Amino acid sequence: MAAIKPSVPKGTRDFSPAEMVKRNYIFDTIKSVFRKYGYQQIETPTMENLSTLTGKYGDEGDKLIFKVLNSGDYLAKANEQALTTRNSNLATSSISEKALRYDLTVPFARYVVMHQNEITMPFKRFQVQPVWRADRPQKGRYREFYQCDADVVGSDSLLNEAEFIMIYDEALSNLGLKDFTIKINNRKILSGIAEIIGKPELIIDMTVAIDKLDKIGLNGVVNELMEKGFTREDIDKLEPIILLEGTNYDKLHKLRHILASSETGLKGCHELEEIFEYINNIKLHRATLELDITLARGLNYYTGSIFEVKTNEAAMGSIGGGGRYDDLTGMFGLKGLTGAGISFGADRIYDVLQELELFPEGSNQTTKVLICTFDKGGEVYALPLLQQLRAEGVNTELYPSGTKIKKQFDYANNKNVPYVIVIGSDEIESGHLTFKNMTTGEQEKLTVNQILAKVK
Amino acid sequence: MAAIKPSVPKGTRDFSPAEMVKRNYIFDTIKSVFRKYGYQQIETPTMENLSTLTGKYGDEGDKLIFKVLNSGDYLAKANEQALTTRNSNLATSSISEKALRYDLTVPFARYVVMHQNEITMPFKRFQVQPVWRADRPQKGRYREFYQCDADVVGSDSLLNEAEFIMIYDEALSNLGLKDFTIKINNRKILSGIAEIIGKPELIIDMTVAIDKLDKIGLNGVVNELMEKGFTREDIDKLEPIILLEGTNYDKLHKLRHILASSETGLKGCHELEEIFEYINNIKLHRATLELDITLARGLNYYTGSIFEVKTNEAAMGSIGGGGRYDDLTGMFGLKGLTGAGISFGADRIYDVLQELELFPEGSNQTTKVLICTFDKGGEVYALPLLQQLRAEGVNTELYPSGTKIKKQFDYANNKNVPYVIVIGSDEIESGHLTFKNMTTGEQEKLTVNQILAKVK
Repeated sequence: MAAIKPSVPKGTRDFSPAEMVKRNYIFDTIKSVFRKYGYQQIETPTMENLSTLTGKYGDEGDKLIFKVLNSGDYLAKANEQALTTRNSNLATSSISEKALRYDLTVPFARYVVMHQNEITMPFKRFQVQPVWRADRPQKGRYREFYQCDADVVGSDSLLNEAEFIMIYDEALSNLGLKDFTIKINNRKILSGIAEIIGKPELIIDMTVAIDKLDKIGLNGVVNELMEKGFTREDIDKLEPIILLEGTNYDKLHKLRHILASSETGLKGCHELEEIFEYINNIKLHRATLELDITLARGLNYYTGSIFEVKTNEAAMGSIGGGGRYDDLTGMFGLKGLTGAGISFGADRIYDVLQELELFPEGSNQTTKVLICTFDKGGEVYALPLLQQLRAEGVNTELYPSGTKIKKQFDYANNKNVPYVIVIGSDEIESGHLTFKNMTTGEQEKLTVNQILAKVK
Repeated sequence: MAAIKPSVPKGTRDFSPAEMVKRNYIFDTIKSVFRKYGYQQIETPTMENLSTLTGKYGDEGDKLIFKVLNSGDYLAKANEQALTTRNSNLATSSISEKALRYDLTVPFARYVVMHQNEITMPFKRFQVQPVWRADRPQKGRYREFYQCDADVVGSDSLLNEAEFIMIYDEALSNLGLKDFTIKINNRKILSGIAEIIGKPELIIDMTVAIDKLDKIGLNGVVNELMEKGFTREDIDKLEPIILLEGTNYDKLHKLRHILASSETGLKGCHELEEIFEYINNIKLHRATLELDITLARGLNYYTGSIFEVKTNEAAMGSIGGGGRYDDLTGMFGLKGLTGAGISFGADRIYDVLQELELFPEGSNQTTKVLICTFDKGGEVYALPLLQQLRAEGVNTELYPSGTKIKKQFDYANNKNVPYVIVIGSDEIESGHLTFKNMTTGEQEKLTVNQILAKVK
């Protein structure tokens, strides 16, 4: 067989041992907070029926779904016309029935509907699995990446929203972040604003534009609004709303005044206030909670609260987001089930922790002790000690003999092993083993019991 | 949108919260043993280049690889002739460049070659990820399932084989299995046998046949051998070898005698003996190590030791297997790198633990305390207690108020929550909260500090 120069598909990644330790640290920290809050893990298959996914992410999204070719003689059932005219779009459904998961939300909705009789409501689930999108790969954007979601369905209580704020606060504080902002807004307030301006039909254009305030500034937003059909008069009403300042309660007070004639808008204000009230009764660790009226988020299925999380310690887009959606399972025939959920952006959190050097020290040490020997006799002598150390829970390796001691030490250094035990004939005779601290270079002769006491 | 009756693709599965807890228990137990032995985790992408996978699993295997359709206008570059003649096989490589991982071994080989300059040899890696095969689904056989592998490359020391035996022993003992057998054999011994019979060219047919001794008995094996071209005389030589009995050393002693004229066969015996010697210097927990000359395993790339693990407590095929291969990375142009590896059959282990009721008690309890209230006032009163319990590491939930207490208790029971705290107006006034043990039904009035002491 000719040698193939190996590579991975573009936009996908291998994760090395050092990267895996750090990734696991992030996932484990977040998962343990999810569990602490009563969220339970599920997993769904990598492949879903294509029909389950199609039409859920818009036309652009549909194009980005990776389709899996049917097994066997798939062309036998291929659409004749599609083949002769080379119409890829038309051909797809005739040669592909399955596709790769595009996000965790639609599979979750499918799961809830399929398993509705086994589930106790409110159902609080978390899910940490990869998703795939045929996006053009670029810095920080991959074709395979993990999502890390917690959702609750079957409860309209705003306590759930308050708990999401607490989850973000606890998880990100546990990861060592010291200064981050949880932005909150409410789709009903955005609807209310569009309503009082008298342009409810332009709500999407409006939210898309004001969502960009951070990036393109007030002038940019105004220009975009004018292009989309808002008048100067509309903008005069919008401007003070967009530029609202003060504490969350100040903003809420002003919004109530502005939205006085919009029932929907006032409902949004009321929801926000209730969430603030919950949060006032607990103590946030490191998070700042900020009402941000420009927060819109792209996803159109949100109907109530919207969240987005940003770190203030590093230049980075949002590291989390979510919100409430009122009819997620409707697409699978189960109507009237409300839900809310949040997501952590694990890849971005990784980059932030890396930049701020927040990964725990020693997280690159996976083996604690390496035993080095010179020959088979040393190896055999070492075996009971090896087993004893492992029985004490100490990650220990015995380097296969017959290799120069220098190379064995290199192995320890490359693997960041902090302690090395050397067993030669002197050591076997005296029962005092050479114990070396690889960080300080210190070396001493110790009995097995002394070594056990040191490394435990 | 019309309601779709939701389902998952055949051969794939959803995992419920209860199943996930059990699956995590198995994976975490095995992973922690891998780590203790110095194996480091890596992950590789779900999709590999189709060229990386093709030709590595035989013609039958190639057919079972799930191919991913190219994104965009994939028919534009489709093979003209393949489309007009509807030749699926011919078409595939022109419309699909990527495929789903079929096992963890080939991606590992690809990883080692691609990252050879970052890796310290011997490289000990473990990997726990799903793989996909377009097999016909049946009981216990899925199209998506997890593999759980540990491999070492760059060390020909038989210490690695001894460590694999120790890993199986420790991991399966930790999972609660009390009686299981690690079968060991060596491809060189099988070669030696074919050699002394004078039919080295029939080694595959021979090993395939004797591998079935368990299933089809001696007569079945003899018939199959005759069909494949072995003579009565050959079988007279083979029979006593197949039926070897006694201790491992007895068998080894007899084999040495039988294989006296085969250099390869004797080398196999020597390797086995060295492994036994290592194991004699440690204490196995629950495993029995058994030299089984009929053990062949299907994979042709093994060149030295072969392993297979069976439980003796339940009727179940092998729950693990592996062996040494001498040139795995050769297919990607890196020659002469020896390796050895083992795999755990997680789905089968799951079924065994389920049958033997070996999952730890309380493993279905993910939330420890549920706080129940009657109204908003109770909720707000409960929030600091909720936060306090969580700060102590106790998984705690606050049920959103406004639901009948009976339904809140049902929620606790369905979720196997062992303790419930009830906060009504009496409780708020007195500061003595109702604390209910859901297992015994016992109920008492306790202060917050008393509750903390109870549940911690």
